[in-house]
Amino acid sequence: MKVFSIKELLDESPSLMTKEVFVNGWVKSVRSRRFIDLNDGSTIKDLQIVIEGSKFASDFLKKITIGIALRVFGTIVISLGKKQSIEIIAKEIKIYSEISHNYLRGTILQPKHHSFEKLREQAHLRFRTRLFSAILRIRHQLAFSIHHFFHKHNFYYIHTPIITTSDAEGAGKMFRITSFNLENIPNHGYLDDFFGCSTYLTVSGQLAGETAAMALGKIYTFGPTFRAENSNTSRHLSEFWMVEPEMAFYELEDNMDLAETLLKSLLNDVLNNCVEDLDFLNWSFIKNQKPKFEGQNIVEILYFIKQHSFARVSYSEAIEILLSSNLNKKGKFKYPIRWGMDLQSEHERFLVDKYFGVPVIIFDYPADIKAFYMRINDDSKTVRAMDVLFPRIGEIIGGSQREERYDILLNRMKAFQIDEKVLWWYLDTRRFGSAPHSGFGLGLERLVQFTTGMSNIRDVIPYPRTPKHADF
Amino acid sequence: MKVFSIKELLDESPSLMTKEVFVNGWVKSVRSRRFIDLNDGSTIKDLQIVIEGSKFASDFLKKITIGIALRVFGTIVISLGKKQSIEIIAKEIKIYSEISHNYLRGTILQPKHHSFEKLREQAHLRFRTRLFSAILRIRHQLAFSIHHFFHKHNFYYIHTPIITTSDAEGAGKMFRITSFNLENIPNHGYLDDFFGCSTYLTVSGQLAGETAAMALGKIYTFGPTFRAENSNTSRHLSEFWMVEPEMAFYELEDNMDLAETLLKSLLNDVLNNCVEDLDFLNWSFIKNQKPKFEGQNIVEILYFIKQHSFARVSYSEAIEILLSSNLNKKGKFKYPIRWGMDLQSEHERFLVDKYFGVPVIIFDYPADIKAFYMRINDDSKTVRAMDVLFPRIGEIIGGSQREERYDILLNRMKAFQIDEKVLWWYLDTRRFGSAPHSGFGLGLERLVQFTTGMSNIRDVIPYPRTPKHADF
Repeated sequence: MKVFSIKELLDESPSLMTKEVFVNGWVKSVRSRRFIDLNDGSTIKDLQIVIEGSKFASDFLKKITIGIALRVFGTIVISLGKKQSIEIIAKEIKIYSEISHNYLRGTILQPKHHSFEKLREQAHLRFRTRLFSAILRIRHQLAFSIHHFFHKHNFYYIHTPIITTSDAEGAGKMFRITSFNLENIPNHGYLDDFFGCSTYLTVSGQLAGETAAMALGKIYTFGPTFRAENSNTSRHLSEFWMVEPEMAFYELEDNMDLAETLLKSLLNDVLNNCVEDLDFLNWSFIKNQKPKFEGQNIVEILYFIKQHSFARVSYSEAIEILLSSNLNKKGKFKYPIRWGMDLQSEHERFLVDKYFGVPVIIFDYPADIKAFYMRINDDSKTVRAMDVLFPRIGEIIGGSQREERYDILLNRMKAFQIDEKVLWWYLDTRRFGSAPHSGFGLGLERLVQFTTGMSNIRDVIPYPRTPKHADF
Repeated sequence: MKVFSIKELLDESPSLMTKEVFVNGWVKSVRSRRFIDLNDGSTIKDLQIVIEGSKFASDFLKKITIGIALRVFGTIVISLGKKQSIEIIAKEIKIYSEISHNYLRGTILQPKHHSFEKLREQAHLRFRTRLFSAILRIRHQLAFSIHHFFHKHNFYYIHTPIITTSDAEGAGKMFRITSFNLENIPNHGYLDDFFGCSTYLTVSGQLAGETAAMALGKIYTFGPTFRAENSNTSRHLSEFWMVEPEMAFYELEDNMDLAETLLKSLLNDVLNNCVEDLDFLNWSFIKNQKPKFEGQNIVEILYFIKQHSFARVSYSEAIEILLSSNLNKKGKFKYPIRWGMDLQSEHERFLVDKYFGVPVIIFDYPADIKAFYMRINDDSKTVRAMDVLFPRIGEIIGGSQREERYDILLNRMKAFQIDEKVLWWYLDTRRFGSAPHSGFGLGLERLVQFTTGMSNIRDVIPYPRTPKHADF
C-alpha cells in the first residue's frame, strides 16, 4: 500500500475519502491524548490524527510526545474541526523512537517562542520549525524556478570551477585552499602544494562563464561563491549561492530586459506555488511589524513588483534626482551625494521607495567605481553597468555589458593592475571571434530574503558561514 | 525584429519560410566565398548562409574567416543542398570582429583533428568544438532533468555547506581553507583564522542533508564536492558535482527503487531531448572504436538500460557467483576475490557484462569496508549499503540505509575513532524523533561520461581540477 505524504493527502483528499492509508511524520502537538498533529515536512500544514476510545493502551499513548516520529495507518474522513479539511482515524500507530523529556529541555523543539539567534544555534533542528521549513520550501521553489526559467529560454547550465588560480576579478577578499597542514608548510610553499600554484575559492563564475557564452550563446552558472571579508552584518555571508547568466550578442538593454523578466517570473512562481508558506510568513511578518515598503506586506509587495514596470534611469540622472530632491525629513541625506560616488542605502531607498515607487534599474555608472571588464561608453567616463534595486533589500542584481574590444580591455586591465598573464585565456575570448555580450549576478539568498521578508540573511540558508562561525 | 537562435530557426522553420530574420553566430566554415556555415551554440547543427552574386564587395568577403562572429540579416528559404533543410540568403552582414591568421595558428579553432589533450590545454576555446559543445548540452540536460525529477517527486533542494569543520566522514582526503597567507601563518594558527577553527572543503553533503531530511521528509543536494587525493587517473577529479537525495522513512528497498527510477528517467530525458548531440557522439564513438558493452553503441546502450530491470544481488551472493564462475579467458581473475574484500573493476565488469547482462545493484556489504553511518544488519557483519554498477564505468551510485539507532551509531563512531563532540549535531538527529531513512550519491561527471561515451572524466566538465592542474 502506498505511503502518502501529507501534501499528497491534502491535495488529493476528495478522491481518498474513507480510504485507508499509511502516513509518516513527526508529532507537532498532542491534545487530550486524543488528537495528534502530524507533520512530515512536505507542507506547512499538519494532519490531524484522531485516537478513538480505548483502541490504544494508555501506556502506549503516554509515549506519544512532541517531536517523535510516527507511522500511522488509518481511515481518511472529513474533519469536524474548523482548522483542517480532513483527518485520519488511527487504526495502527508505530512509534519509531521515543524522546526523553530531559533531552527536549533547552531545545527549540519545545513548543514556545524562540529567538532567531537560538534557532541558529540549533540549526540542525530548526528545519523542524514552521518558520524555517517554510523558508526552505520557498528557497527550493526559487532555485527550481531559476533552472526552469533558463532551461525554457534555451540557456545552458555551466559548472564553472570553485577552485580558481586567480584573485584578479577584484570582487572581494578570497579564501586560500591548500592540501598542507597549516602547522607544517614546506619550504617551497605553493609550488609543492596540490595544484602546484596558489589556489582560491571563487568569488564569481563570470569570467569562466563568458568563455562558455562565447561558444554556446546563452549560459548560466548557479553555484556557491565565497568572500573572506570580515563583515559581521545581517546582509553578508562568507559562502552564498549565486546565479550568473551570460549571453553572447546581448547588449545592455537586452540584459536589463532579461533581469526584469527573470525576477518577475520567479516571484510569480512563488506566488503560484507557495501560497500556504507565504501566508504563514506574511502573518508573522505583520505580527513582528517589520519595516514595510509603503505599507505593503510581503505578499502584496510580490504582486506589486510582478505587475509594474521597473524604472530605468542612468546613474547621472539618478544623481540629478538625488541632488534636487527634498530628501529625508530633515531635508538632507546622512551621506551627501555627488557624481562619482557609490550610492548608499539611503539614496537607493529614496529612489525606490519615495521617488519612483517601483524597482529601479540604474545604468551607466562611473567607470572608476566598477569592475575592469565592463564596457566603456563613448564618454570615456562611464561604463555599461547596471544594478537592479529592490525595496527593502536594495541591490538584488548587478551586471553589465562586457568590454568586447581587445585593446580597450587590455588597457583597462593594466589600469587595474591585473596581470594579463594570469587572465590570458579571458583576453583570448576577445581575440577569437569577439562579439558584444552581457550578463549579471543574482544572489540567491538576497532573493530568498526579499521573498520571505526575513531581515537577517543567516536565516535563509541552512548552515550560514560567517566570520568565526562554521558550525555543523 | 526578433533575433532567432539557430535552434529556434530550425525548429520553427515551416512557419518562418520566406521571412526575413536576424541571426548571430560564429563562422564554422566558408566555401568558395559563397557558403558560410554559422553556429551559435544553441544546437550542434550549423545554419548555411548563402552569399548571392555581387551583393557584397570582395574585400569584405575576404574578412569572413573561420572563428569570427557575424550578425546576418536575410531571407529563410528551403535549401537545395542535402545537408540542411533551410538556409538564409544574406541581405546584410555585420562582422563583429576579425581574427588575425597568426592568432589562429596553433589553436584548436583550426579545422582539423585535435587530440583530447590539446583540447584540454585550450579549455577556454574547446566550447567551440562540436564534440565539447555536444557534451555540455547533454550535461545541461542531465542537470536540469535531475532538478526536474526531484521537484516532480516533491523533494526539496537543500544547499549544504561547502566549507565544513569536520573531516569525520572518511570519504577521502580534504582540502583546507584559510584566510592566511601560507607564507605567514600567525602563532595561534587556526584559532586566529577566519572561522576560528580548522575548515575544509566538503567531501559530501550527506550528513547535513540527513538533518534536513529528518524534518522536510525528502530532500536532495546538488553541488560541488572535493577530494585532495593525489589520483591522476581518467576517473578522478579533485572537484566534481554530486547529487545526494536523502529520504526520511525510506528503507533500503525504497532507496534502490528510487535510484533505478531516477537513472532510467534521466537517460530517457537525454534520449528524448538530445537526439542530434547523441547522434554526433555516437558516430564519433563508433569511429574511435572505444570499448563497447556487448557490441552496443552509446545510443543503443541508453535504450537498453532504460528498458531492463536492474539485477539486485546481495554482496554475499555476488561473491558466491564470482567464486563459482568461469571468470576470464584464462579462468581466473587478476585479483582473487574472497568475502570481505572490495570488488575490483574486473569483478564488477564480470557481474554486469557477463553474468547479469544488465546494471546490477549490490547490497548488504561487509560492515568493515563501508562507512560508519550505514545501518548494521541483524547478522552484525553486514550493513545496508548499496552500489549501482553500470556497464563501462562501474559504480555510478553508492548509498545506504542510515543507522537510525542512537546507541548503535555511537558505538560505530567510536569504532571508527570519530569524535562525537565534532558530530554532536549529527547524533542529535537520532535523539529527537529518529526514524529510518536512506539516501545515495550520484556523481554528475560519471553520469555524463556514461551518457556521452567519453573515456576521460576531464572531458565532461568545463575546467577540470586535478593534481597540478587548476588552470583557467
